[in-house]
Amino acid sequence: MTTQTTAQTTSQTTSQTQQQIEDTVTEQVLASFADTENPRLKQIMESLTTHLHAFIRDVRLTEEEWEAGIAFLTDAGHITDDKRQEFVLLSDVLGASMLTIAVNNEAHGDATEATVFGPFYVDEAPQIEFGGDISGGMSGQPCWVEGTVRDTEGNPVPGARIDVWEADDEGFYDVQYQGQGIAGRAYLHADENGEYGFWGLTPTPYPIPHDGPVGRMLQSTGRSPVRAAHLHFMVAAEGLRRLVTHIFVEGDPQLEIGDSVFGVKDSLIKTFELQSAGTPTPDGRELDRDWTRARFDIVLAPAAN
Amino acid sequence: MTTQTTAQTTSQTTSQTQQQIEDTVTEQVLASFADTENPRLKQIMESLTTHLHAFIRDVRLTEEEWEAGIAFLTDAGHITDDKRQEFVLLSDVLGASMLTIAVNNEAHGDATEATVFGPFYVDEAPQIEFGGDISGGMSGQPCWVEGTVRDTEGNPVPGARIDVWEADDEGFYDVQYQGQGIAGRAYLHADENGEYGFWGLTPTPYPIPHDGPVGRMLQSTGRSPVRAAHLHFMVAAEGLRRLVTHIFVEGDPQLEIGDSVFGVKDSLIKTFELQSAGTPTPDGRELDRDWTRARFDIVLAPAAN
Repeated sequence: MTTQTTAQTTSQTTSQTQQQIEDTVTEQVLASFADTENPRLKQIMESLTTHLHAFIRDVRLTEEEWEAGIAFLTDAGHITDDKRQEFVLLSDVLGASMLTIAVNNEAHGDATEATVFGPFYVDEAPQIEFGGDISGGMSGQPCWVEGTVRDTEGNPVPGARIDVWEADDEGFYDVQYQGQGIAGRAYLHADENGEYGFWGLTPTPYPIPHDGPVGRMLQSTGRSPVRAAHLHFMVAAEGLRRLVTHIFVEGDPQLEIGDSVFGVKDSLIKTFELQSAGTPTPDGRELDRDWTRARFDIVLAPAAN
Repeated sequence: MTTQTTAQTTSQTTSQTQQQIEDTVTEQVLASFADTENPRLKQIMESLTTHLHAFIRDVRLTEEEWEAGIAFLTDAGHITDDKRQEFVLLSDVLGASMLTIAVNNEAHGDATEATVFGPFYVDEAPQIEFGGDISGGMSGQPCWVEGTVRDTEGNPVPGARIDVWEADDEGFYDVQYQGQGIAGRAYLHADENGEYGFWGLTPTPYPIPHDGPVGRMLQSTGRSPVRAAHLHFMVAAEGLRRLVTHIFVEGDPQLEIGDSVFGVKDSLIKTFELQSAGTPTPDGRELDRDWTRARFDIVLAPAAN
């Protein structure tokens, strides 16, 4: 008993000294940002330091674990190029992307909810007219998507720009194929009544790229890399808050398993109604195979300022 | 007044809904790690998620700032290669390295304090004997360094392996020169009395590599990239805790300005005594220029288990 008591006392004494040593490191780093001219940058660096240090202290990070962290970031950096963005994937699977979106898109009346941007948007998508086809020859079941863009007072938003992009039925975006041109993406403008409609592909679930460090992290934590089936939208109009979102497919089993990037909101789950081959299409297009149709009415919040 | 009160009420209502939305994101991510088999990995991922989310919420991170963070990590990944480790530099300038070292090297009696490992250690350093020269032809003022390796009970540690490495008087390590062979680094073993001695170069202050994203971060926060002058040591012996540390140079003005990676401990500041040309050297070496001598007695803590 005596020995144990002594050991405990020593341990407590060490802990106090130790805590002071660790506090000093954090204080020195915080003090180093004292001369930062930009107050916002100063705030960010101080908060980042505080939380990073709290993490290290909370888990008592070992030197081997620190090395594993450095190796993880190095691998993520080396797999990242113009077409693969491992740091966005990392942010996505840690929910940092979705949380940032939540922070920046506070709920506003019945405005459509935002979700993750993802790493597969590209600038060079072609423009299409009402009823155009975004698939660019990618494989998948044809899908007619239509809806109206309105503001939160119910007024239509003529001319709103609508960017849409999606994977094919193999689960790959155009940029993931070697030598594939632009496909599965386009933009169009809402008409004078705020209405839009286009042909795309019925979304199917697919895994995020998981042959890199983020994929290995998901595997070692028992997580699925699969995203719930979705079609990306980015909608912009002057004076209104830009909306980045998806629509999800009602009945997709992955909605139960869980979306690997936490992007699902109940309000964004839509019915993709199956139409048998030969059913007349909204724009007279002739199809000799089954297709689906979905409706997505979009409500844009006012711009912040 | 009425308008302002209404606005405040609305803002508070939004805040509660908003807080719930943000809480839900964090809860979903934490729940996603429920099936992690390795309990330590589970603990780390949960803590990382908690602190990362707290950071985003605390600063109300904007989407532009998130993008800047992704771009920063991407740039850091792309500048990193076999000889440049930007993520280690990042960890160093945020004090994460020094804090990890503090957590893993709890003070033990009068054991020598540890400090940052830094990114410039390489495995292929040559072995030298007592009195050998580590400089390998690099430029700088000759410096004799000697001392004894002991355990915390005062017993000498014969055969302890001592790795030493340093920059030249231009502030560069061998690996920072194109086509330069191994220089400014070596290892030796303490003799049968635990004593060691070698020729190196008097350390001079130098900036960490600051032509990358970490350097730009330091500049935008008004911080100096310069490290206090130092000589690296790594000391290992069976049954004792491996020590990674530096010695610093008493009187170096950078000790006042601040070390860019927070590595300085008072106990590691040593006198480098100036010796005029012609002063007899400890090992009879003839020098026609000024040189310095420093003493560093090393005490190794017991191994953890």
